Amino acid sequence: MAKNLALLGSTGSIGTQTLEVIQSLNNSGQENFNVLGLGCGTNVGLLAEQVREFRPDIISVKSEKEREEISGGIPENVEITTGREGLNRLAQLPEAGTVINALVGFVGLEPTLQAIGEADRLLLANKESLVVGGSLVTDRLSEQETTLIPIDSEHNAIFQALETGKQEEIETLIITASGGPFLSTPLKEIPEATPEEALDHPNWDMGSRITCDSASMVNKGLEVIEAHWLFDLPYDQIKPVVHPQSFVHSLVQFRDGSMIGELGEPDMKVPIQYSLTYPDRRANNYERTGLAEIASLDFKELERERYPAYQVVVQAGKTGGNSPAAINGADEALIEEFLTGEIKFGGIAEGLEIVLREMDRIENPTLSDLKSSDSWARKKVNELVKTEVIGEG
Amino acid sequence: MAKNLALLGSTGSIGTQTLEVIQSLNNSGQENFNVLGLGCGTNVGLLAEQVREFRPDIISVKSEKEREEISGGIPENVEITTGREGLNRLAQLPEAGTVINALVGFVGLEPTLQAIGEADRLLLANKESLVVGGSLVTDRLSEQETTLIPIDSEHNAIFQALETGKQEEIETLIITASGGPFLSTPLKEIPEATPEEALDHPNWDMGSRITCDSASMVNKGLEVIEAHWLFDLPYDQIKPVVHPQSFVHSLVQFRDGSMIGELGEPDMKVPIQYSLTYPDRRANNYERTGLAEIASLDFKELERERYPAYQVVVQAGKTGGNSPAAINGADEALIEEFLTGEIKFGGIAEGLEIVLREMDRIENPTLSDLKSSDSWARKKVNELVKTEVIGEG
Repeated sequence: MAKNLALLGSTGSIGTQTLEVIQSLNNSGQENFNVLGLGCGTNVGLLAEQVREFRPDIISVKSEKEREEISGGIPENVEITTGREGLNRLAQLPEAGTVINALVGFVGLEPTLQAIGEADRLLLANKESLVVGGSLVTDRLSEQETTLIPIDSEHNAIFQALETGKQEEIETLIITASGGPFLSTPLKEIPEATPEEALDHPNWDMGSRITCDSASMVNKGLEVIEAHWLFDLPYDQIKPVVHPQSFVHSLVQFRDGSMIGELGEPDMKVPIQYSLTYPDRRANNYERTGLAEIASLDFKELERERYPAYQVVVQAGKTGGNSPAAINGADEALIEEFLTGEIKFGGIAEGLEIVLREMDRIENPTLSDLKSSDSWARKKVNELVKTEVIGEG
Repeated sequence: MAKNLALLGSTGSIGTQTLEVIQSLNNSGQENFNVLGLGCGTNVGLLAEQVREFRPDIISVKSEKEREEISGGIPENVEITTGREGLNRLAQLPEAGTVINALVGFVGLEPTLQAIGEADRLLLANKESLVVGGSLVTDRLSEQETTLIPIDSEHNAIFQALETGKQEEIETLIITASGGPFLSTPLKEIPEATPEEALDHPNWDMGSRITCDSASMVNKGLEVIEAHWLFDLPYDQIKPVVHPQSFVHSLVQFRDGSMIGELGEPDMKVPIQYSLTYPDRRANNYERTGLAEIASLDFKELERERYPAYQVVVQAGKTGGNSPAAINGADEALIEEFLTGEIKFGGIAEGLEIVLREMDRIENPTLSDLKSSDSWARKKVNELVKTEVIGEG
């Protein structure tokens, strides 16, 4: 029987790899996935190709402009929806048992909330859903039958490891961090680093925000927040460890002393496939490097001085409420300023710290509160840059 | 409700640690284990202490001599049995849901066969049960409801990892090997190594046969044979990898590319506890070393020339039938000759090779055939040593 699914964010890095995995599983005869819906923002050229290949019933694009651009290039019977409503439609297709949310940014939160209760499974790659909307999402999950499966390699590794034990048996989640490009850079040089240096990630081939976040370790702080919500654990049971080879994707230390880890290539197609086929594992021929070939797996403590932004992000997580929303919005704005040369790399951590300190806290924010905090933080960053409160590029 | 258990081999290394774990779990209030039976060979002094502490209904000792020695020192209502029959009684106690077989040597095979079908769970540390009697044991398991849980750290790690996937989803079992004391010894010096050198194991504190087997890597060959039977896999899906820190206890590579490994201290109490409490995990305060403290986990290929005995043992496994029985008996005899200075370390591999070449093969051996092959091999070793066919010590 075909498994129907909807994919939001189909033209991004995770979206395109998801379609590759789907095609490869279908071609090998191991699965029969049927793509009912595809959603993206503005990359209508690629979306049109995907439509011709996967023949969805419905697609979603950013606005009327993109609707016009794509409508001539795809079969007439494909329904075209737009904007926020379009994404929400995709997230709630009655026949889609699986929704994959690979949207980038705040825009992904609402479709996550919409999918919970409608889909049997929600495969989540959208960071903001949990970072920003963790309490809204987990509240909703607790009332519904939907299973949430994290696609992100660290959380997917933990999800796999947890098959060997129960939530209350967890002692610590150990989240591995590559350490990024500045792992060995002399400390005083890091604040002055250029965008080229920050974007030079050693292991994973990712988008530029996430690569930059991995240099500042903001990424790891956000993952700690996600883990907090995903696995319902206090922050002191979630620990990062620097692991330059990115071969151990993360581990769970159980209360009996056993650590269970998931290891393998830094290749997102593996956790994507596991998420799609869970609880089954299907064969593939993706690259495998043997342990003897890897030769050494190294681990070290995350140095607090090297990654000041990490501390701020985890602090925002512990503070809770609307703090992560503000920090996440601020970080996006700060990266933009950094990549365009307006501020130095060190300005990212400085900006985050100011935003966390100066923001108005809301204990139990609504979706609309979260949006306001995000906007406020972005504006605050622009202001800080204009008034040169944070360092120049 | 109390969980009743019988422990065979209570005075050995695994046996005493099992009792430590049982006591610690009972004391913490997390379990309520009730030791119904204890069996050992000749260490009646320690057994008497154990009887006073754990109050079993029945014990088993080697012979009438040990019965006489112990009978005065323990409560009169404890039934004392002896020999083969005594061990078989313990293995079949009607009220013992769990039987732990920590016997050392061939003597452990028959109680394993007796326990299958009687106990709900058989926790197995006795190597010979699977190495020598693999086909008998697995035949019997396939007809009965008994669950077999391996205590040995490598197999226990694989047993844990398999909670995350199904047997048919296994691509490769990766069994880690410390490499023993001769990991970096110049190749030509190894055959001349002394007993002191061979017994100097870097990580695990074990008995002298197993330590010597870990120097020759016979141990790992035997574990490959055990894994073959335990997890029902052909030999080409079971691969050793040298890992000097013994921190990764073994891994399963699944067909989707994910490797799941179990990591932690080289402390047998952890797999013993997991076996006792499976599928639950109980808290303990055994030592935990963090990954950052370990700093590096190293892996290398197992060098064929460094460990010639390994090849012979795996070859015996592949040959099947009574070959592993002969090889196992021969190895025990060869180690004795080595430890008493009759042969050189290199003589162990030489002796094994001759035994495998010269033995009479039986395709489907009975228990009695296996015993004969074991005896034949031991005699053969004595002969080889006497006639100086294998090198002098």
